Amino acid sequence: MTSTPHQTAPGIVEIEATALRLRDHVLRTPLLHSPFLDAIAGRRLLVKAECLQPTGSFKVRGGWAAVSALAPEVRARGVIAYSSGNHAQGVARAAAAMGAPCVIVMPADAPRVKIDNTRALGAEVVLYDRETDDRDAIGGAIASDRGLTLIKPFDDPQVIAGQGTAGLELAEQAAHLEALHADVLVCCGGGGLAAGIALALESRAPGLRVRTCEPAGFDDTARSLASGTRQRNATMGGSVCDAIVTPSPGLLTLPVLERLAGPGLVVTDDEALHAMALAFQHLHIVLEPGGAVSLAAALFRKDEIAGDTVFCIATGGNVDPALYRETLTRFA
Amino acid sequence: MTSTPHQTAPGIVEIEATALRLRDHVLRTPLLHSPFLDAIAGRRLLVKAECLQPTGSFKVRGGWAAVSALAPEVRARGVIAYSSGNHAQGVARAAAAMGAPCVIVMPADAPRVKIDNTRALGAEVVLYDRETDDRDAIGGAIASDRGLTLIKPFDDPQVIAGQGTAGLELAEQAAHLEALHADVLVCCGGGGLAAGIALALESRAPGLRVRTCEPAGFDDTARSLASGTRQRNATMGGSVCDAIVTPSPGLLTLPVLERLAGPGLVVTDDEALHAMALAFQHLHIVLEPGGAVSLAAALFRKDEIAGDTVFCIATGGNVDPALYRETLTRFA
Repeated sequence: MTSTPHQTAPGIVEIEATALRLRDHVLRTPLLHSPFLDAIAGRRLLVKAECLQPTGSFKVRGGWAAVSALAPEVRARGVIAYSSGNHAQGVARAAAAMGAPCVIVMPADAPRVKIDNTRALGAEVVLYDRETDDRDAIGGAIASDRGLTLIKPFDDPQVIAGQGTAGLELAEQAAHLEALHADVLVCCGGGGLAAGIALALESRAPGLRVRTCEPAGFDDTARSLASGTRQRNATMGGSVCDAIVTPSPGLLTLPVLERLAGPGLVVTDDEALHAMALAFQHLHIVLEPGGAVSLAAALFRKDEIAGDTVFCIATGGNVDPALYRETLTRFA
Repeated sequence: MTSTPHQTAPGIVEIEATALRLRDHVLRTPLLHSPFLDAIAGRRLLVKAECLQPTGSFKVRGGWAAVSALAPEVRARGVIAYSSGNHAQGVARAAAAMGAPCVIVMPADAPRVKIDNTRALGAEVVLYDRETDDRDAIGGAIASDRGLTLIKPFDDPQVIAGQGTAGLELAEQAAHLEALHADVLVCCGGGGLAAGIALALESRAPGLRVRTCEPAGFDDTARSLASGTRQRNATMGGSVCDAIVTPSPGLLTLPVLERLAGPGLVVTDDEALHAMALAFQHLHIVLEPGGAVSLAAALFRKDEIAGDTVFCIATGGNVDPALYRETLTRFA
């Protein structure tokens, strides 16, 4: 396993170079709009639909960025990732396209669709218990045994640069709409997407400000930003927003967010589900709960948001059909 | 009501002029891709997601094109449309944006969400019985009484030109993918979208060929193309694909399709529902049955399609939540 102890977050040059590498391999996602959602949000609301990416989440950006950045002889030995599912699929897709072996370490309670899809993408899946096992230790051991390179889900400069390419796109799209000052709501687990977007916007759209969005009870980033020290979640299980539950913000990502992001936003699980139903009705996109917390914040925390326009990154759409049906029953 | 008896289908010049007028008012929709769907389709499958348009269907293109083409004093008197829902919303949105009064004549059995959304967009909704009433007669009478201009759903040169802008986008997107020879599957009611796209492709991507897609039992276009004479559907009710059930192909659209389209494709209602569920799982878009028949044809009529790439236009996403839940129960 390659050890890289003194990494730093990427700069705008790295993010723009990554965007060139990703072109033709990830989708330039559209900004969606509905007058019905504007009415609820109390301002113009524009949703960048990362759920439309191949494999259903923004994670294809970081996965492709990291795997494509490896030296050919390193990549040929293979890669490993630990992930609740979306990062897994992003890495597996990139590895398969580049002919690299791929092992994915996933929590045993991840949605079935994510486990199945990761296997279908050609990866070997190793399951662990989210409450009792240490996924970093499991992943590290397998990586050492087989000479695999660990692709971390967020605390990796290449991954942050990859996710940051969404911010480059947003900067261009916002300029076209003449939206020069607005909050950008980003679903936040370890903070790779939020940090990457914040770094891209710092250079390309400095009037746009990232706001992290998390589920209640798993708001480690909001508490870290408020307290000025890195906070941990009390538990790792129990939120329907499984895709964005991480133990704590990243060592690379948190300093970026402390410097560039506004206060963190927190929504309830039911608000995330309600936002999923509204996205079904008015945007015609499928979101998973963890991918809908930013939309939920735009719709249900409007007093904590500034400006007459707000952007949301809707980050993923891999949701079990049974949960989706239940959500439509309750909220649509 | 303005009468225009000797209209002809638009040419590429009109379609390109319309595209300039629509820019900034409709979405340039992305082409979505999933390796899982490729495996079912047996070839590369790319889905142009028109369900992501504001109001949830491609009809915003034709609606904006037609209302924006009216002389200001004509537009100020108002517009009227008869529509099972998506054309209604497209016209209502354009009229509201341009400050024109708008009356919509809708079948009483249209999905509730379409009726509600049309009213929420500021239109006056008049309901009629799909089996017993003549919507053309009802619309014509109201238009005469109030001096409104009737915006026909498909047999109108401006509407066809508006829908054709999707074909201009597709020609550019296909060229970027180096897909120069492929079938383009289009959900087909009266044929405005299919004809508009066919006309755009004729000039801008002549190796791409439109194939109309319809639900079984309501395959008036397929039968018209096969027989060389304009066929009618035996009934107007009973298909879950309500959005694309029309009495017969248009007088303007059918000659275009006879000249440019391949044989029509026909799928069952269950195949359309199955395609909706697969779009949920693998593309993360919400489709209505009538908006999914093209995807169903790509997935379940693969022996009737030529080439190693196929394009689908997924035309709309306004589906009642109860039907969507039932569809996921059966097919996801």
